[in-house]
Amino acid sequence: MKTTKHKAYGASTNTADLELMEIDRREVGANDVKIDILYCGICHSDIHQVRNDWKNSKYPVVPGHEIIGRVVELGSEVTKYKQGDLVGVGCMVDSCKNCDSCHQDLEQFCINGATFTYNSPDKHLGGHTFGGYSTGVTVNQDFVLKIPENIDARGAAPLLCAGITTFSPLNHWNVKKGDKVGIVGLGGLGHMGVKFANAMGAHVVMITTSPNKAEDAKRLGAHEVLISKDQEQMSAHANSFDFILNTVPVGHDINPYVNLLKIDATMVLVGAVEPLGSVNGGGLIMGRKRVAGSLIGGIKETQEMLDFCGEHNITSDVEMVNMQDVNNAFERVVAADVKYRFVIDMESLKN
Amino acid sequence: MKTTKHKAYGASTNTADLELMEIDRREVGANDVKIDILYCGICHSDIHQVRNDWKNSKYPVVPGHEIIGRVVELGSEVTKYKQGDLVGVGCMVDSCKNCDSCHQDLEQFCINGATFTYNSPDKHLGGHTFGGYSTGVTVNQDFVLKIPENIDARGAAPLLCAGITTFSPLNHWNVKKGDKVGIVGLGGLGHMGVKFANAMGAHVVMITTSPNKAEDAKRLGAHEVLISKDQEQMSAHANSFDFILNTVPVGHDINPYVNLLKIDATMVLVGAVEPLGSVNGGGLIMGRKRVAGSLIGGIKETQEMLDFCGEHNITSDVEMVNMQDVNNAFERVVAADVKYRFVIDMESLKN
Repeated sequence: MKTTKHKAYGASTNTADLELMEIDRREVGANDVKIDILYCGICHSDIHQVRNDWKNSKYPVVPGHEIIGRVVELGSEVTKYKQGDLVGVGCMVDSCKNCDSCHQDLEQFCINGATFTYNSPDKHLGGHTFGGYSTGVTVNQDFVLKIPENIDARGAAPLLCAGITTFSPLNHWNVKKGDKVGIVGLGGLGHMGVKFANAMGAHVVMITTSPNKAEDAKRLGAHEVLISKDQEQMSAHANSFDFILNTVPVGHDINPYVNLLKIDATMVLVGAVEPLGSVNGGGLIMGRKRVAGSLIGGIKETQEMLDFCGEHNITSDVEMVNMQDVNNAFERVVAADVKYRFVIDMESLKN
Repeated sequence: MKTTKHKAYGASTNTADLELMEIDRREVGANDVKIDILYCGICHSDIHQVRNDWKNSKYPVVPGHEIIGRVVELGSEVTKYKQGDLVGVGCMVDSCKNCDSCHQDLEQFCINGATFTYNSPDKHLGGHTFGGYSTGVTVNQDFVLKIPENIDARGAAPLLCAGITTFSPLNHWNVKKGDKVGIVGLGGLGHMGVKFANAMGAHVVMITTSPNKAEDAKRLGAHEVLISKDQEQMSAHANSFDFILNTVPVGHDINPYVNLLKIDATMVLVGAVEPLGSVNGGGLIMGRKRVAGSLIGGIKETQEMLDFCGEHNITSDVEMVNMQDVNNAFERVVAADVKYRFVIDMESLKN
């Protein structure tokens, strides 16, 4: 198959820094959209994959699944886009489109395996897919998203992963005006959760271990801040939340948060893909409480999220970096030293 | 307040065997129904309370919350019942009737505290309530249930706790014809779960560690038996269940059961009111899976359950015992040596 060459940054082994490399992209097929990448967000998953933390990385790893760019070429059957459109690509670039999950617009749970934006088997070229730390990418039109032109394109990049990851559970569990909603953890995910819950009309409570995050949480849209280490505050809020979005990215004791839920209310985990602490069965039984997980969102819901961001002028708070500074940015993500997401300006790679 | 004396069996301390004692019941008030107790089921909770396992027992403990009897006297404002009616009393005898939970027919979660059938503060006589190991009881008409006359009254006793505990989650989570439903654990709760799920039209899979329970599970209505220690069988059933009812009464590793759930499916815990093992966040996230708890059911739903039992001729499999043999029966419950519930014939106490 004919290919075009692109500059990219990738890691050749699990111990290497990211470095400049050249990758192949497929030529534009009938249903493909070729995108000139403007910006790409840095997600903590990128670092996990580069470092093989999940034991499934294939090298070289070219990460990046928060891609913003302009359409530069269209396949003959592409109807949804035209040249120059501002578009996005998130965590997925394909799925089987034929299974129960795909029929329900839940491509992230494709029974036959969604094609993720990087480190997934590449159906076209063989090998595995390469992500957005690159000058360009070619994607099936069904996995390309429209970015509202009225929002800042740089701050839009993290919407493609951090945004949909937090919007989807708030939307799926029907958070609405007047609901008391807790967001646990103020990082890349949590700050988006606060913005979305606020825009949905909820009474938003930032739940954090760090009193020094209170001011920023309120700036982002939290109406209250609950310090989870303060037993008295936690008791005062017991059994009062309609919904809790838990963005903590590591294993932790979830029982104190279950205690905050109302009868029949749900806490959804979106961060911790690892073992949590022991869960107290009685805490769930005494109130018919629920704990669930949620993974990004389907393509249809991702477009709904972007349209919602257009209506409410929501973007991520970002710090721009050049491609050449990505290794330092990775260290700062690991140290939680960013408010709240890094976005790579891909102009730096083109020059 | 005027009282009447009743014979009962109770424990005077947390180390004592149950023994014959005399207790007071209130005189019949305007909204009260006085019941001559025919049968009372033995629930594992009775044993926990007698032995103060939950550190909240008040002595003497007269247990029993699976009560079947005949109406012998009615208050002036009682309209729902007449003398001679076959009635039941379950785990609750009163609630505030005024809170959000009570307004939703979820008296078991009464914000101001439901009055449980035993070991709850007694609003009428002071002290605490006494359960059904007794010749009679007087209960507010709103907490009295009609027992269908076509079902065996002895086998009906455990419906008031084991029955509603398993019916309620199956009903609330809308189990329906064709659903693949797992019941984890074949004991007093599990055997009712199998009967209900079968009657609701589900494809019922008994999930058990014990291959020797397979035959009985099928007799009770299971269509398949899945041995949870068999990795190959567990893998074959991965991601296939619409709903799982987990009746295991002690802490255990729930992750293998979460793996059995379909996308968006729920497992409900009804047995383990204690710490479970560590729960893997990734198992919930990869499939938007849910784990919840459920506690008995409200009075309205308990009546629905009893009416359902009347329609489908469902009762518990019981072994009858005399009141004088209760201490031995307790030991056999602890040893899981009963198929599947003991019911006390209260005639033995009257003689």
